[in-house]
Order: sequence, then C-alpha cells, then structure tokens
Amino acid sequence: MPATPHVERHFTATETVRDIVIGMSDGLTVPFALAAGLSGAVVSTGIVVTAGLAEIAAGSIAMGLGGYLAAKTDLEHYRSERQRELEETHTVPETEAEEVADVFRRYGLTEEQSAPVVAAIRLDRDRWVDFMMRFELGIEAPDPRRAWRSAFTIAASYMVGGLIPLWPYMVLSQGATALWTSIGVTLATLLVFGHVKARFTGARRLRGALQTALVGGLAAAAAFGIARLIEH
Amino acid sequence: MPATPHVERHFTATETVRDIVIGMSDGLTVPFALAAGLSGAVVSTGIVVTAGLAEIAAGSIAMGLGGYLAAKTDLEHYRSERQRELEETHTVPETEAEEVADVFRRYGLTEEQSAPVVAAIRLDRDRWVDFMMRFELGIEAPDPRRAWRSAFTIAASYMVGGLIPLWPYMVLSQGATALWTSIGVTLATLLVFGHVKARFTGARRLRGALQTALVGGLAAAAAFGIARLIEH
Repeated sequence: MPATPHVERHFTATETVRDIVIGMSDGLTVPFALAAGLSGAVVSTGIVVTAGLAEIAAGSIAMGLGGYLAAKTDLEHYRSERQRELEETHTVPETEAEEVADVFRRYGLTEEQSAPVVAAIRLDRDRWVDFMMRFELGIEAPDPRRAWRSAFTIAASYMVGGLIPLWPYMVLSQGATALWTSIGVTLATLLVFGHVKARFTGARRLRGALQTALVGGLAAAAAFGIARLIEH
Repeated sequence: MPATPHVERHFTATETVRDIVIGMSDGLTVPFALAAGLSGAVVSTGIVVTAGLAEIAAGSIAMGLGGYLAAKTDLEHYRSERQRELEETHTVPETEAEEVADVFRRYGLTEEQSAPVVAAIRLDRDRWVDFMMRFELGIEAPDPRRAWRSAFTIAASYMVGGLIPLWPYMVLSQGATALWTSIGVTLATLLVFGHVKARFTGARRLRGALQTALVGGLAAAAAFGIARLIEH
C-alpha cells in the first residue's frame, strides 16, 4: 500500500476489534434475552443466574472455539488453494497465464497492453501464484497466528458482555426488580456498544446504536414471550 | 472468471451454505450445552425445556438479525468507500493513478510496463474505481439482496439445530434419560454435521467431524460444570 496520506482515511476495523464486536454482540444479547425469558416463566432468580452462567460458559466456549476453527479452516483452505494454483503454473502454465490476462481484460486492457504485464508477472512463480490467489480467486492470505488470539478475544468478550445483563439477578433478590434493572442496564449498554461499533464500521452512529438495542430488545421479548407461553 | 474447466475445481461455499453452517453450528451447540448444564443443576425437565426454547428464540433472533445488520453494514461500507474512491479520481487523479501503478509494482512490473496498463484502466472511471476497490482495498461488492435471505437462513438453521438437543427433554420425563439421549443424539448430529461442513470447506472430513463434536462436548461440559458448581 502506498504511503500517501489520503489512504489512511479509509477505515478498516482491525481483526481484534472485529472479534470483540462478534463476542460482545452475542454476549450482551443472548444471556440478556434468556434471563429475561426465564423471568417471564416466573422461575426463581437463582435458576435465572444458574441458566445465565451456564449459557455464558457454553456460549463463550462455542463461539471462541468456533472462531478458532474458522480461522484454522481459512488458513488450510488458503494453503490448499495456493498449492493447487502453484501446481497449475507447472502443469498448465498457458491456461494460468491466460487467466492473468483475463483479469486485465475485465478492466478494459487490450491483448497488446496486457501481454507484457502477463509476461512480467509470470517471471516470478511466487508472485504469479499470489496474483492468482488475490485477483482471480479473491482470497487474502490469513495470519497464521490469528486462530488462538481470535478464540480468546471472542470468548472473553462474550463473557464480559454476558455478565452485564446477569449481575442484577445476582445482587437483587426481587425477581421483578432484577428483570427491570437488567433491561435498563443492558439496553443502555447496547446503545453505547452500537454507537461505538458504528464508529468502527463507518456506519451512522445513532442508527447503529438504535439497531443494536432493537436486536437485543426483540430477542429478549421473543424469549420472554416463548417462556411465558410455555408456563401458561 | 474464465470458462476454463479447471477453475470449477476450486470450491467456494455458497453464501447460503455458509449461513446454514453459521446458524446450525451455534444452534446445535449452545442450546445443547445449556440444557445439559441445567440438568447438572438438577432442575426439572420442564425448566430445561423452557430455558432451551427461550434460548432458541433469543439465539435465532439475535443471530438472524445480527446477520442482517452485518450484511447491511457491509453494503453501506462498500458504497461509502466506493463513493470516496470515485471522488478521489476527480480530486486527486494522479495520486489514484499512482496507486494503480503501485498494485502492479508489487507484482514486479517496471514503470515502463505498468504505464500503458494504468492509462488503459483510467479510461473508464467506473472500471478504474472497481479496480481500486478490489485490488487496492480488497473489498468485493456485496449482493444487495443478501441481507434478509441471510437473516432468515441463519435463524431457521439455528432453530432446527437447537431443537435437536432439546426434544429428548420434551418427550422423556426422566431427567437423566433425557440428558443422556440428548448427549447421544447431539454428538451424533455434530459428527455428521462436522463431516458435511468439512466437505464444503475442503478440510479433512474425519478431523472436521471430531472437532465439531469436541467443541459441542466441551461447551456442554463447561456449562454442566458451572451449573453444578452453583448448585452446591
């Protein structure tokens, strides 16, 4: 990437920020909705806390390891596709060179214009394969060290997110008070979180805040409705 | 993409398959782990079913709408970045042309080789901007119709996945029998699912099957342990 100053204005969320958003979105929403739902079924706050903590344990492990496996799978997929492309530059070099030319044809280059470019790219086999990976297949090389870091970040964010809606049930003995405190605290957190998330993705902030709170609210309302329906 | 037959051997999971995998992975794992966890806390199967269904409602809505918002955010991000690139081809055309040249420099082209290519790409402003989006920023144009389809696919897959571990608690009155039936049925499903998923991502199938079952098993064991710990 060139060092021209204007490039820096393009915002690209770092992978860590993305992992925190992934973990925290679900962590704030699902345990919140589950706890609210169980309150709808009029169970004791003790059961709400047990179910909530069990959900946080299950959710953080499932999401964290899920993120780990996804990153590993991406890496393996990249390596196997790269190996295949590499072999093809040996077995069917003319076909592969033709595919490089095809990439340029799509951008309006004539045969005469693209021929020297294709010839230059073919000179270095590694660069040739890299070109095919990125421009023909559209696959970027994943960072091999990402998998564990990603798993840990997602799991920790899920736990932090999940404990926010749950603590009112831990410290308040009155079920109804705990439910309303949890709703208030969680919706406020979702608004702040949606706002921050929108800042990172470049979306409109007020809308981001409202959307995130709406998803949490709808999920909680559905869980509450289902639980109450079963109870009656 | 050229119509040469060998390209077809590269497997790319369709977006629908990916959405089914996303929804089903979590749907099979989290409600399973939650139900097993609550069994560890020796609550009635009635409460397990209520909590499980509340979780499925919350999880499917949170994940489905989360998928919808993610797709929408991707689309907005793409459009705002494209607009910015488009403006820059008007305000700083030479800088943008230099960035096109930079892309080719990384693939070993000399100044003389890249100059006619850059000139050809600049001729059509739309193609020029498309080139920058894909090759400089590495962002592909998202499908605008994807958001709702994605939301529905993820939510439905989560529900289907979540009902598999839950039905034993619905039909069997004995808590321990329901728990073991749920464990057996879910682990078997996770093995099959992991196998199928590995087929789609091109990973090794036996390993994929075992990994997927392991994540579900670990999540359930953690939820079970936490719930039992609170109870005592």
